[in-house]
Amino acid sequence: MALKRSTCPIANVLDLVGDKWSLLIVRDMLLFNKHRYRDFLTADEGIPTNILADRLKRLEENGLIEKSPYQHHPVRYEYHLTDKGQDLERLVQEMVRWGLKHIPGTGPRPKAQK
Amino acid sequence: MALKRSTCPIANVLDLVGDKWSLLIVRDMLLFNKHRYRDFLTADEGIPTNILADRLKRLEENGLIEKSPYQHHPVRYEYHLTDKGQDLERLVQEMVRWGLKHIPGTGPRPKAQK
Repeated sequence: MALKRSTCPIANVLDLVGDKWSLLIVRDMLLFNKHRYRDFLTADEGIPTNILADRLKRLEENGLIEKSPYQHHPVRYEYHLTDKGQDLERLVQEMVRWGLKHIPGTGPRPKAQK
Repeated sequence: MALKRSTCPIANVLDLVGDKWSLLIVRDMLLFNKHRYRDFLTADEGIPTNILADRLKRLEENGLIEKSPYQHHPVRYEYHLTDKGQDLERLVQEMVRWGLKHIPGTGPRPKAQK
């Protein structure tokens, strides 16, 4: 986004995770214990593979997640939240509270899928 | 966004306010007492006029804000948060907390401007 530099914490948070997909990946790690590439692809929202790869890269560059190999030939990675990423839990939970209260058709909690 | 329909409250909240500009307009109403079109244009982030007009329309359609005329010839409107919009305050405040803690260069509170 072509934005004037702002010192506003809200604007800066939105720069980091203010696109739909980034926070849904964080949600999947926080609430659904998903950590591998193919696991994220199973979410109801149907994230496209190119967007998933891009958002994982950006989340890692911004220090919200870390990757570590779980297999070496060929190498494959797991993704886990850093402390900074884990600290988004209160934000995510507040979105759940607001959504359940104000948006008809949202469930008591998001549906887990394998 | 072309998304599969999801019952996840987080995904649905992100559909409503998961673009940078919508929440910055909500911030300006909540924290800076801005209510008129030209006031929103003064924010540090420099929202383009066509995006501002579009987001005000969407926020109104989604029941987060209401408009009322403050002048009749020509007609001009003020925008105020509904109860549903006002209830985003906890989400906005949680973004402030997280941003101040984790993003270097963010201020103790967003800078008010006239």
